[in-house]
Amino acid sequence: MDQETYDKGRRIRTQVLGESYVRNTAGDDFSGPLQDLVTEYCWGAVWGRDGLPLKTRSMLNLAMIALLNRPHELRTHVRGALNNGVSRDEIREIFMQVAIYAGVPAAVDSFRVAREAFADLDESR
Amino acid sequence: MDQETYDKGRRIRTQVLGESYVRNTAGDDFSGPLQDLVTEYCWGAVWGRDGLPLKTRSMLNLAMIALLNRPHELRTHVRGALNNGVSRDEIREIFMQVAIYAGVPAAVDSFRVAREAFADLDESR
Amino acid sequence: MDQETYDKGRRIRTQVLGESYVRNTAGDDFSGPLQDLVTEYCWGAVWGRDGLPLKTRSMLNLAMIALLNRPHELRTHVRGALNNGVSRDEIREIFMQVAIYAGVPAAVDSFRVAREAFADLDESR
Amino acid sequence: MDQETYDKGRRIRTQVLGESYVRNTAGDDFSGPLQDLVTEYCWGAVWGRDGLPLKTRSMLNLAMIALLNRPHELRTHVRGALNNGVSRDEIREIFMQVAIYAGVPAAVDSFRVAREAFADLDESR
Amino acid sequence: MDQETYDKGRRIRTQVLGESYVRNTAGDDFSGPLQDLVTEYCWGAVWGRDGLPLKTRSMLNLAMIALLNRPHELRTHVRGALNNGVSRDEIREIFMQVAIYAGVPAAVDSFRVAREAFADLDESR
Amino acid sequence: MDQETYDKGRRIRTQVLGESYVRNTAGDDFSGPLQDLVTEYCWGAVWGRDGLPLKTRSMLNLAMIALLNRPHELRTHVRGALNNGVSRDEIREIFMQVAIYAGVPAAVDSFRVAREAFADLDESR
Repeated sequence: MDQETYDKGRRIRTQVLGESYVRNTAGDDFSGPLQDLVTEYCWGAVWGRDGLPLKTRSMLNLAMIALLNRPHELRTHVRGALNNGVSRDEIREIFMQVAIYAGVPAAVDSFRVAREAFADLDESR
Repeated sequence: MDQETYDKGRRIRTQVLGESYVRNTAGDDFSGPLQDLVTEYCWGAVWGRDGLPLKTRSMLNLAMIALLNRPHELRTHVRGALNNGVSRDEIREIFMQVAIYAGVPAAVDSFRVAREAFADLDESR
Repeated sequence: MDQETYDKGRRIRTQVLGESYVRNTAGDDFSGPLQDLVTEYCWGAVWGRDGLPLKTRSMLNLAMIALLNRPHELRTHVRGALNNGVSRDEIREIFMQVAIYAGVPAAVDSFRVAREAFADLDESR
Repeated sequence: MDQETYDKGRRIRTQVLGESYVRNTAGDDFSGPLQDLVTEYCWGAVWGRDGLPLKTRSMLNLAMIALLNRPHELRTHVRGALNNGVSRDEIREIFMQVAIYAGVPAAVDSFRVAREAFADLDESR
Repeated sequence: MDQETYDKGRRIRTQVLGESYVRNTAGDDFSGPLQDLVTEYCWGAVWGRDGLPLKTRSMLNLAMIALLNRPHELRTHVRGALNNGVSRDEIREIFMQVAIYAGVPAAVDSFRVAREAFADLDESR
Repeated sequence: MDQETYDKGRRIRTQVLGESYVRNTAGDDFSGPLQDLVTEYCWGAVWGRDGLPLKTRSMLNLAMIALLNRPHELRTHVRGALNNGVSRDEIREIFMQVAIYAGVPAAVDSFRVAREAFADLDESR
């Protein structure tokens, strides 16, 4: 493990997804190795690169996770995208583009997940 | 058909993919109805919306088409992305994020397609 | 928007999925633009074409949505297929063909979704 | 192996895809077991069922294989569909529905494969 | 149907997934034909082949069903894998390899499904 | 970057895929960052873990890459699998299991890729 990359990854992951999310996914014997891999490589080695702003990375993620059909992860990254400055209107635009390129069912599901994430946030205020 | 949306779609499609591409895909009896649908709905009704700049739409498309595993379309949209102001370095960043979220084979294939598109462009200059 | 195509789409969508479904998906500021696109483009411009009967279109949809792995949409289109004259026995045949071409897990999940849709319908009578 | 199912499968497979295709895929030590499984299980046990006409099964296959993104198989089944009485216009309708439910790139690729299959057939006449 | 292959399939399916699972999926008029197909071809004609030990087949299945994104089936096959001698540590390794080849969201979801399956088993003791 | 993990990754990658393959993918300004990520993260941090033998990791990869529908990568990993002690008969078994779980077209394509890889190897001897 490269400690500097890991620490940078933990910092970005916390900034995007929140301290409580990161604490909850800390992992035990079973899932710890995955969480460490995700922190170092996904959040440190890739999200931590200079070439794209966090907001753009979040937008790409919403499009990709919509296509990957992973609603738990999509909901997490809708929250992360809002933290990174993506507006609700921009999320709508992303998922309308999903409708064209990946089909209507992918878009309909993604809109539902986004609405649920928005409702959670509005309630928790 | 809504003529205004269709015309807007044709204009954007031409701006992004080039006049010769659009002319070549004009379609005959068999594929004409698909091409008209794509021009009006994909390029007019969605790409033509105000909510995201063309550059961002191109970046989303590169990520999505990489996941959809459609190399012909990916090559076309690499060219379109360059036309919309996405740099080669930004394309690299997008496909590195593909590596993390959709796996290494999707990224390796996408890098190869991008290199081929770059080589074509460099040769045609 | 092309009003004639939109109206035709709304008529077909209502005929296939029911008035209450269409009213429930009417959309607000967030999802309204998607719902309008789906009504015009999906239901008007494609379902509204002459080349295939509604029953055949429903059969194709069951196969496609089974592969797309979208259970909410699949349940909706199981109901739509029954409205379009696809029998329960034909739905079984479609999903057995899914087993062969897309694998056993896709078929097992699709059978479960279909049974749930059938049970809902039988209860609501 | 159930000889009766196998023989029925071989008969249907030959009827749909042609004698020369079936002979070419007969298989050796490596692929023989797969080809036998496909003949018995795919063509005998499922295509051989009474619940759907061959034409409908071909239409379902075109939609499914377009989504599965397997161009070799798609080309084979375009030919099979024509043998089973699906017209070129119906193939266009199927792939336009693919555009809506699985996205524009899946449809564009499928139209290209179909055109290539049509051109092969027109040349071989 | 080949009775010998069917019986072998039923025996292996019961050994891997348990008698109560197999009894629950016996099927009625609607799903019986699918269940018979799965027992004969999936469990008899393929799982019943000599070329790979059951443990290896289970490991392949965990990787494949993680990618197919079918959580119900994945949970069933986590249990089956444990019955076939795959350890919890080996399951972790399989899903870490899923992270690399199919992306982080597929791995995160698969770890969650595995934890739920483990918790069920630990409770039922 | 963690030099130790990178070096271990380069060693394993070379052992599995061959020195000339690794040299050819060394990367330039465009693809160098991806290749470094793959060497460290894929080959060092995951393939380099103790929990599964290389042979098992190769078998999992064949199943996964067959499903991911990436023929270039599949051909590379067929060669790698043979280097890791997977026999041609075992490769057949893996792809027959692909037929059941991911459908016949995925298996047919994978058998073709494997045959091409075998033919290349037999010729180069």
